[in-house]
Amino acid sequence: MAFLEVNYYSRVLGMNRVMNVLLPEESDHNPNWTNDSLKDLPVLYLLHGMSGNHFDWQRKSDIERLLRQTKLAVIMPAADLAWYTNTDYGMNYFDAISQELPRKVASLFPQISTKRKKHFVAGMSMGGYGAFKLAFSSSYFSYAASLSGTLISSLNYPGFLDMEKQAYWKGIFGDLDKFSGSKNDIFELAKRQSNTGIELPKLYAWVGQQDFFYGANEKAIPRLRKMGYDVSYETNPGDHEWYYWSKYIENILQWLPINYQAEKRLS
Amino acid sequence: MAFLEVNYYSRVLGMNRVMNVLLPEESDHNPNWTNDSLKDLPVLYLLHGMSGNHFDWQRKSDIERLLRQTKLAVIMPAADLAWYTNTDYGMNYFDAISQELPRKVASLFPQISTKRKKHFVAGMSMGGYGAFKLAFSSSYFSYAASLSGTLISSLNYPGFLDMEKQAYWKGIFGDLDKFSGSKNDIFELAKRQSNTGIELPKLYAWVGQQDFFYGANEKAIPRLRKMGYDVSYETNPGDHEWYYWSKYIENILQWLPINYQAEKRLS
Amino acid sequence: MAFLEVNYYSRVLGMNRVMNVLLPEESDHNPNWTNDSLKDLPVLYLLHGMSGNHFDWQRKSDIERLLRQTKLAVIMPAADLAWYTNTDYGMNYFDAISQELPRKVASLFPQISTKRKKHFVAGMSMGGYGAFKLAFSSSYFSYAASLSGTLISSLNYPGFLDMEKQAYWKGIFGDLDKFSGSKNDIFELAKRQSNTGIELPKLYAWVGQQDFFYGANEKAIPRLRKMGYDVSYETNPGDHEWYYWSKYIENILQWLPINYQAEKRLS
Amino acid sequence: MAFLEVNYYSRVLGMNRVMNVLLPEESDHNPNWTNDSLKDLPVLYLLHGMSGNHFDWQRKSDIERLLRQTKLAVIMPAADLAWYTNTDYGMNYFDAISQELPRKVASLFPQISTKRKKHFVAGMSMGGYGAFKLAFSSSYFSYAASLSGTLISSLNYPGFLDMEKQAYWKGIFGDLDKFSGSKNDIFELAKRQSNTGIELPKLYAWVGQQDFFYGANEKAIPRLRKMGYDVSYETNPGDHEWYYWSKYIENILQWLPINYQAEKRLS
Repeated sequence: MAFLEVNYYSRVLGMNRVMNVLLPEESDHNPNWTNDSLKDLPVLYLLHGMSGNHFDWQRKSDIERLLRQTKLAVIMPAADLAWYTNTDYGMNYFDAISQELPRKVASLFPQISTKRKKHFVAGMSMGGYGAFKLAFSSSYFSYAASLSGTLISSLNYPGFLDMEKQAYWKGIFGDLDKFSGSKNDIFELAKRQSNTGIELPKLYAWVGQQDFFYGANEKAIPRLRKMGYDVSYETNPGDHEWYYWSKYIENILQWLPINYQAEKRLS
Repeated sequence: MAFLEVNYYSRVLGMNRVMNVLLPEESDHNPNWTNDSLKDLPVLYLLHGMSGNHFDWQRKSDIERLLRQTKLAVIMPAADLAWYTNTDYGMNYFDAISQELPRKVASLFPQISTKRKKHFVAGMSMGGYGAFKLAFSSSYFSYAASLSGTLISSLNYPGFLDMEKQAYWKGIFGDLDKFSGSKNDIFELAKRQSNTGIELPKLYAWVGQQDFFYGANEKAIPRLRKMGYDVSYETNPGDHEWYYWSKYIENILQWLPINYQAEKRLS
Repeated sequence: MAFLEVNYYSRVLGMNRVMNVLLPEESDHNPNWTNDSLKDLPVLYLLHGMSGNHFDWQRKSDIERLLRQTKLAVIMPAADLAWYTNTDYGMNYFDAISQELPRKVASLFPQISTKRKKHFVAGMSMGGYGAFKLAFSSSYFSYAASLSGTLISSLNYPGFLDMEKQAYWKGIFGDLDKFSGSKNDIFELAKRQSNTGIELPKLYAWVGQQDFFYGANEKAIPRLRKMGYDVSYETNPGDHEWYYWSKYIENILQWLPINYQAEKRLS
Repeated sequence: MAFLEVNYYSRVLGMNRVMNVLLPEESDHNPNWTNDSLKDLPVLYLLHGMSGNHFDWQRKSDIERLLRQTKLAVIMPAADLAWYTNTDYGMNYFDAISQELPRKVASLFPQISTKRKKHFVAGMSMGGYGAFKLAFSSSYFSYAASLSGTLISSLNYPGFLDMEKQAYWKGIFGDLDKFSGSKNDIFELAKRQSNTGIELPKLYAWVGQQDFFYGANEKAIPRLRKMGYDVSYETNPGDHEWYYWSKYIENILQWLPINYQAEKRLS
């Protein structure tokens, strides 16, 4: 695949941003991938977690190698520590990722499909929260997947707020007591979406059984199913580490409607 | 010179960061720059402005070409839109750039000097404010330079707060009415430093006469001189654009104690 | 503009390659550059010289800043030390740059025009030779420009072969005595092209008067004009240095049919 | 770890080069890795294969994630398609990688050890050949490892020369009939080294049983052992693919004297 580091300007955030992009290309392994066959490409937006950036998935997982025989574009944006949220301090990361970025992608890479049925989003940890948030609050994504996702319904989830300073959390979400039921509560967003009658995005979630978000996922899945979402849910022994995300991202690739070509593994 | 994109981790910010670095190296143009001669290197921290990042100086100026015959390392960090400040929302950009980054540089590039007399800082616009801030609030930099710098003593400077939303400004600086006299007011920092009796950093400032910060610079320079600072001040026709920063950064290189080797220009 | 580092695979060379790309994008400076307006974009292929690579123009010139208000894509490929030539040792750099690369660009960036009238090529030194070579031997480029270009008609040009080992030159060009009149002789290529009757590319050349290729350019221009080429030729005091290429690339931008928007310069 | 893209100049090759570098750094996971503890670091030179470049190991393997708790620097150079050889066409890749690069590394990263006992080299396919070549022909590396390495004693190895054009092979190795016994024949180099009486580098080799170099490895190992080399040899089902190199590079990390800290894997 072609691997691109893209420095672009975000008018929503008012600053230069970097994203990494994987694009299918003609190569010795894919000699039939001529220009004409590389149109209307399906695309996966792949989101990072806390402390990460646009480069995490490339540096810590096998995403590029896994996809080398599958026609799928991958967009890996950077969203800082902002929880894919229009922050209380006026930096609108949610708008930047959910609205502006797809337009930017359509401008820079017109070979990528703009159809909902070919738009997928996934992420790990904070990025799992982000993936569901994007899928629930727009009609832009038809599949959304979470790995070890922060699928919490209240900021009082055990240990959660202890990860950072109070000022940080208030900066992201504003009044912390008003989180539940707000536009940053993914269950509220899911409820609103399920009430609209539009075709709901298909969901996938994986979490490790030793992960501190295991309990959150165990509760979230039945709750989302009750709202009408089709959720594929898997869990294995594992904690909150890149080893698992690198391993289980392949489950997502197999779940997506992309005719994933898995590599042969003899040992 | 060698040009490096450095992906590192900031414990202070709790996230992956990127900086660009220029390092003198042996080459056909500098055959005598053997390893032994590339020790205890002087270093310039070069700061970006609003909407910029670590890559701006490389993309929009001639900084690398200008320095190709001069033994100076250049560190170009990214500091987002945060005004080189410990923000009200708990992200401590000031600590990250002023304290953690020099330690990180010393770790990754031990050939760079850690002596104050060989540490310089410069920047444009918000980065000019940042350069003076770093020089005034630490004993780490012996020379500091500002191009079109935001050398304001109050946030009520005409037009300033209009550049962004109120929530953004409050996120950066907290209570806006308490800016003057605070640790984010460079004149307050200068006053405190000048009272300590330590050797003051030498200062340089350039601003364009059509720049909206021209008035601020015109007032700032005599004020800083009155506190005892040695300020080299230059001004020319010009507004708030990269053309001028690319051009006048050379004035700074000539002003710094680095034995700058200017390129020959026959036309 | 958006600035991209693109890692792609070249089937012709059988290896991973890197190119840098500039793409016009919507931004605060260009708010009307909506997606619809960024179609069928004109493109400049910008070639490096000996010892350079894909990153040279970005690192040593102002090309991005100069173009920030002009709708022009720029492709900056890497062609090693191979003189844009199908080398005697079997590495087909000429085919890779002149045939495969435009197809790759069309695949990765469909917003870039594939029309000859919107395809331009320029380069410095070895890249000036390359620019003319590409324009003369394909019907792909309508404008070609050379800065300090190696516009020689024989490898016996004074000092030329002394720059590298004999084995190197033979590796590139094969039998050195058969260079003149071969497919690597740009005057032979020009003659052949001018005989075909197709519309000839418009040419531009600049060279410094202290440059060792000054003599070559002085002879080349009248020779090309005699074959029917429309050549804009300029010369100034100057030698073989990036200062001049950064300065005079702007002459090329003004000469190209791209509605170049020059930046304002008050000093 | 810190991940660096390093653009440097090679005087030996006469051109700009790119290498990727991993450097241990203080982080939340390694809070005790203070500057003082990051001195005299062991280093692994990690070489790519045909069609690859400096970026391959990062893009296609887990090398960075695997090493995140181990104090080891990694240097990933680009050596084009040149077989780590001083080519017949005058480009001295062997000198560039075996002599100039370690000096460059010592200059740019003085925290990396220059002691032989802390210098290791590994590679896959062509890079396995390169790793053994570097270890046999210098006293610079104490450990060398090959994954699916081209450990052939004659260019007439079945299918080998068919991979590329005759002109290409001649360009690399010169007279193909004189390969055996030449400075490009790793067994000749091993013989010479074993005759010098210096402490021999320790060797590791892995190859897949479905790999076309399986036969070559099966023959090479006993031959090297007979010369006195201590060779750790492992083989598993597998062919010539990155899946195996990403998997079995960990065997090398466990074999090296670096106190490798493997990640926990619960599933």
